[in-house]
Amino acid sequence: MQVGFLGVGRMGRAMATNLLKAGHMVRAWDKAVTPLRELEKAGAEIASSARDAFRGDAVISMLPNDEALREVFIDGALLENLNSAAVSVNMGTVSLDCVDELVAVHAAHGVAYVAATVFGRPDVATAAKLSIMAAGDPDAIDRIQPLFDAMGQRTFRVGALPRQANIVKIAGNLMVACAIEALAEAAALLRKHDMSAQEILSVIVTSLFNVPVYQGYARAIGLQEYEPPGFDLLLGMKDVRLALRAGEQAQVPLPFASVLADAFMDAMANGDAHKDWAAIARVAARRAGLPE
Amino acid sequence: MQVGFLGVGRMGRAMATNLLKAGHMVRAWDKAVTPLRELEKAGAEIASSARDAFRGDAVISMLPNDEALREVFIDGALLENLNSAAVSVNMGTVSLDCVDELVAVHAAHGVAYVAATVFGRPDVATAAKLSIMAAGDPDAIDRIQPLFDAMGQRTFRVGALPRQANIVKIAGNLMVACAIEALAEAAALLRKHDMSAQEILSVIVTSLFNVPVYQGYARAIGLQEYEPPGFDLLLGMKDVRLALRAGEQAQVPLPFASVLADAFMDAMANGDAHKDWAAIARVAARRAGLPE
Amino acid sequence: MQVGFLGVGRMGRAMATNLLKAGHMVRAWDKAVTPLRELEKAGAEIASSARDAFRGDAVISMLPNDEALREVFIDGALLENLNSAAVSVNMGTVSLDCVDELVAVHAAHGVAYVAATVFGRPDVATAAKLSIMAAGDPDAIDRIQPLFDAMGQRTFRVGALPRQANIVKIAGNLMVACAIEALAEAAALLRKHDMSAQEILSVIVTSLFNVPVYQGYARAIGLQEYEPPGFDLLLGMKDVRLALRAGEQAQVPLPFASVLADAFMDAMANGDAHKDWAAIARVAARRAGLPE
Amino acid sequence: MQVGFLGVGRMGRAMATNLLKAGHMVRAWDKAVTPLRELEKAGAEIASSARDAFRGDAVISMLPNDEALREVFIDGALLENLNSAAVSVNMGTVSLDCVDELVAVHAAHGVAYVAATVFGRPDVATAAKLSIMAAGDPDAIDRIQPLFDAMGQRTFRVGALPRQANIVKIAGNLMVACAIEALAEAAALLRKHDMSAQEILSVIVTSLFNVPVYQGYARAIGLQEYEPPGFDLLLGMKDVRLALRAGEQAQVPLPFASVLADAFMDAMANGDAHKDWAAIARVAARRAGLPE
Repeated sequence: MQVGFLGVGRMGRAMATNLLKAGHMVRAWDKAVTPLRELEKAGAEIASSARDAFRGDAVISMLPNDEALREVFIDGALLENLNSAAVSVNMGTVSLDCVDELVAVHAAHGVAYVAATVFGRPDVATAAKLSIMAAGDPDAIDRIQPLFDAMGQRTFRVGALPRQANIVKIAGNLMVACAIEALAEAAALLRKHDMSAQEILSVIVTSLFNVPVYQGYARAIGLQEYEPPGFDLLLGMKDVRLALRAGEQAQVPLPFASVLADAFMDAMANGDAHKDWAAIARVAARRAGLPE
Repeated sequence: MQVGFLGVGRMGRAMATNLLKAGHMVRAWDKAVTPLRELEKAGAEIASSARDAFRGDAVISMLPNDEALREVFIDGALLENLNSAAVSVNMGTVSLDCVDELVAVHAAHGVAYVAATVFGRPDVATAAKLSIMAAGDPDAIDRIQPLFDAMGQRTFRVGALPRQANIVKIAGNLMVACAIEALAEAAALLRKHDMSAQEILSVIVTSLFNVPVYQGYARAIGLQEYEPPGFDLLLGMKDVRLALRAGEQAQVPLPFASVLADAFMDAMANGDAHKDWAAIARVAARRAGLPE
Repeated sequence: MQVGFLGVGRMGRAMATNLLKAGHMVRAWDKAVTPLRELEKAGAEIASSARDAFRGDAVISMLPNDEALREVFIDGALLENLNSAAVSVNMGTVSLDCVDELVAVHAAHGVAYVAATVFGRPDVATAAKLSIMAAGDPDAIDRIQPLFDAMGQRTFRVGALPRQANIVKIAGNLMVACAIEALAEAAALLRKHDMSAQEILSVIVTSLFNVPVYQGYARAIGLQEYEPPGFDLLLGMKDVRLALRAGEQAQVPLPFASVLADAFMDAMANGDAHKDWAAIARVAARRAGLPE
Repeated sequence: MQVGFLGVGRMGRAMATNLLKAGHMVRAWDKAVTPLRELEKAGAEIASSARDAFRGDAVISMLPNDEALREVFIDGALLENLNSAAVSVNMGTVSLDCVDELVAVHAAHGVAYVAATVFGRPDVATAAKLSIMAAGDPDAIDRIQPLFDAMGQRTFRVGALPRQANIVKIAGNLMVACAIEALAEAAALLRKHDMSAQEILSVIVTSLFNVPVYQGYARAIGLQEYEPPGFDLLLGMKDVRLALRAGEQAQVPLPFASVLADAFMDAMANGDAHKDWAAIARVAARRAGLPE
């Protein structure tokens, strides 16, 4: 298939590379040039603009946040006077407000819009083992299923409204953040009882929580290694806010999310915005008077 | 080996049965007679008193709480004038205060004391797949390792001080309670956004949190089925308090544990003390104004 | 002095009436006609539009929220091609984001802008006993000080930047909301210990907290009377969000504010959005399993 | 009247001195000798033991905590074989568990027991302006009312069960702690928005919260002066725990109290146990990354 690809950061690059490996044609665009050059070596064409990438069978957006999407789709009026039958697939994490705007602008221009959020960090993306949550018009999803098959290990169809894919992503990310804070509190407790957080968290994630998401964070927190970041704490804060905002819209108090927002803000105010988001464990340690 | 066994509730019975299956001799005692009769059929001897069970190579305690242990070991003066070389192994979940008392009374009477806490619910115990965290004198642990091998799939040695095994258990249980609350908040968020918590939690625990502890609770919360309880909410409250108390002793603020204590108390005040502890999801739902 | 007055809800009407009593001329505007008619009887002129009210020595805005202000000042382009030397005085509670926009638009059109927030409910406004926190250009404040003297019992000058008046208001409102939640938790505790919350809260606000803000809410919570609302719970939620947002902008975790946001959302999800904001005490009572 | 007085710390000394001023005879006891010598100069007799002080018309206990009371009344068997018609009046802050034990031991020995808790710090006690909450047998309270009149400005009769006086004290102290945290969060917010917490909190406690309890803490937090302590942070933690424990006994979730417990623990873990309890504002500041 012919695929446009908007946004080739770490995740996007890995995903686009897997499309190429599976034999699809990729026409990529990004504001930054360096990652585009790398993709070019892997066989992608480089588009001169977002608009230039918007053709073929599908256009995948993997942009970092609401602002980047709005810049391209709303302010940039990407869809105006566009003659394209491509399905527009947004795979990034965005707010529900932004999803609603994107749905509206696609509908206004008669372009099919699918939301397909993913679970998995860049290494999982590279291994083509993402879990993909797709929502939107079933026919449109059918058409682009081969692309999902190239990028992920399984696609879950979670609803007919695009925003539903985003809600699943928001809920899942909130649960990951909760797991990190749980590890962080356990680590502080263990350390203040003169035990090795590294050893004991390892026991716990070998037995009870024998799953990669816990194992990775248990290792980081046990070793107190938060650099280089796998996922910036600043972005973790953004995800917690998306959850709180989704809660607000539907009137759902989320006390764990509230505690998390306070912990992330504490971390940022104390200089850790660009460490890995597991560095909220430094907040738990500081609260307990542990040495840094 | 010859093993005394104090406390044959659901967990204890499963564990003692596995000892019998592995060829060990078991001499069991409990305040309740019915479970003893069942064990007798499986080949165990029945002791006439806790004291009567305290002989052979090891005595395993699997009593429900601090009070039951104190009644037997402290008030019942179990160790006074006892002529026994048995290693005393406490495998139940107790407070650190109680551990300290047990350590002291064993030391005073020259009886070897090992703490060996477990992760796993009754079905896991039945399958002899418990994870065992042992702490205490390494020689004493060596002597009883065959028993652990018969009951669990893996033994982790977590320290030379018995209380360390209990701290690991307390930390692990806190993390399980956190996972439940995370599922509960996600479920409320999904339901109020008109999605099926059952379906979507299933997606999340098939992808990100692909581990039994999440899958079991995701199922219960998705189906809103909290009876019969696998683990009483009342006992979950006790575990959260053990964590808060352990935090207090070492001056470790545990904000997630504080939120949990409030949620468990809310559940109990609203009549759910004897439902499964996953029923704290009913609290999250009530806060969001969802129908019961 | 000649004063334009935009927004004559309960607060605005009381304030404008005091300006009239003090001998000032008032030219009032509001979207709603009924309150204008009442003010007319008290001696005010009625302006045909916000623009029509914008002349004389000062224009006071007492509009309900960010949206209303933006509608008039930004979308309505109130200040464009306006030939007026009036000082623009915003006395309502708005977000810091909105203040920044208002400051910018006034600067762009060369109109002096003063922020002057108030503490006090409608009865205090009627008695001309408001506390006024003014911020902005000192000369501009000097010019309108006679108006403040007519509406309040004391003016505090809190800074040279308009937003500072809003931060004080936001901080003060947060503290009032905290006082309500403290009363709510105390009431639930007293009731579940079989004591009269009404009697005992009365003791506490006669001794320790002998100040109207506590006495009013202690009375409402003691009597469980939340209607008619003095201040809608929905607006209380808005104020808590303003505090959280101000904390977010400056990276200040506010755990009490986070608890409050969850309590207000719980109240709204359970049908109390239009009761008095003291009705968050119903949330505290529900959590404790108390009958409604 | 003839009055025994157990415990002459700062509060007790001030109260006993006012009894002497009002013409009552005081026979004082304490473990510490120095404060007794001071009281002797003011006209008190010194008792050789708690038992020696237990005669006359009333015996007032103003001991620091549960342990001190238990040491004297329970372990010290103060009431055994005592021939005294004195009303025993406990005016200290104790746990409900301890109250219940004291009620039982007094009943067992036929000694009238009144609980009479107080609001007010040492300077208020010195000025004989305490608020006194008395609970117990009305006749017994009638007999000792003259003593209350000498020590306080007003006595509130809050119930027939002694523990009710303690619940009021616990609820009131919780509300004071909430006020401190509210001031602390407001101060952090103001400071990070480049405003003077000292000036602005002063505005807020001159207008909205015009009452000594707020004014004193606003001053301490504004000046960041927490030494010497008026009330040790360690004791503040004890009071918050009494509230949480009272909540636990009656199944009342108290989310503000939970946040407070975490803040107090944070402060203690970071070295502030013996500063004034207003030093929880240092926790709020640290969370916001403010310099110490």
